[in-house]
Amino acid sequence: METEKINFLKTYLSLYIDHNTVLKELENPNSDYVVLDVRNAPAQIKGDQIKGARALAAKDLAQNLDSLDQSKTYVVYDWTAGTTLGKMALMILLSNGFKAFELSSALEGWKGMHLPTEPVPA
Amino acid sequence: METEKINFLKTYLSLYIDHNTVLKELENPNSDYVVLDVRNAPAQIKGDQIKGARALAAKDLAQNLDSLDQSKTYVVYDWTAGTTLGKMALMILLSNGFKAFELSSALEGWKGMHLPTEPVPA
Amino acid sequence: METEKINFLKTYLSLYIDHNTVLKELENPNSDYVVLDVRNAPAQIKGDQIKGARALAAKDLAQNLDSLDQSKTYVVYDWTAGTTLGKMALMILLSNGFKAFELSSALEGWKGMHLPTEPVPA
Repeated sequence: METEKINFLKTYLSLYIDHNTVLKELENPNSDYVVLDVRNAPAQIKGDQIKGARALAAKDLAQNLDSLDQSKTYVVYDWTAGTTLGKMALMILLSNGFKAFELSSALEGWKGMHLPTEPVPA
Repeated sequence: METEKINFLKTYLSLYIDHNTVLKELENPNSDYVVLDVRNAPAQIKGDQIKGARALAAKDLAQNLDSLDQSKTYVVYDWTAGTTLGKMALMILLSNGFKAFELSSALEGWKGMHLPTEPVPA
Repeated sequence: METEKINFLKTYLSLYIDHNTVLKELENPNSDYVVLDVRNAPAQIKGDQIKGARALAAKDLAQNLDSLDQSKTYVVYDWTAGTTLGKMALMILLSNGFKAFELSSALEGWKGMHLPTEPVPA
């Protein structure tokens, strides 16, 4: 049973990337990381986003895969970690051969740690 | 590793149902869906519930399976997605041959989207 | 598919321990349970902790395993269940042969139920 638990945790954790790693990538002008805001909400509801994020709603992701770059690593996030939207976006990306992670703790955790955000572009 | 991640996500996501699907079912008078409020709390603490939900606390679920209908599809929810109560209820239902899902984002997400609720009947 | 879902849930739930069980252990002077606060934050940010918890940040855990006791059962918690820190700590403990669980609903759930906390020792 312990092996099963450890394997489960290993796979679970391999889906996530932590905010420190993402922050370092965002500060590196040559980074291959792209942060995708996959919230299914209009700009005025979203308000703020992670600084430098690109908006691509989870509901539109499957139809817009050709606008993505296979050489990049995508980091997806939703409002909170309690939703399944981030995992849905992640499954679409991984199933289509993209390198991708979900941001641990989602936007809520990012804001809670006072990391850089910006208003969602109109 | 990617296949393992994708299979993990596929199984994880197959446990959940999203609020839009549930909302449509609640509006359909011939729906086979039944929403179960599995919170382990007295009515006065619970306050509001999802409109039309039936209260059946997770702690009482295993003893009350004969009050459920094998032809229905059950949607369980707890306060938030951060608890394990919904998954516990889901495991009991699936293990006993019921069709069942956990509501993605739980009651917190439902309220956050201003979807219909009602006071818990006394 | 149902078997796969049930096995997934079984493994998932086996990682967690609920607050009632932990509370009973904390009240038992001969308990083998030790609660570990694995938050990666300085004491003044942490504020309160679960009464009787020992602070051992997730980031320092791997380097401090020899300060732990193989005969104990460790219960780890982070701020909320939405983070991956608890699962990371849990994986380190299980991989090194310790008996360990993550506290269901994390510190947020514990406080939400008004269970005993105390100021983090300076």
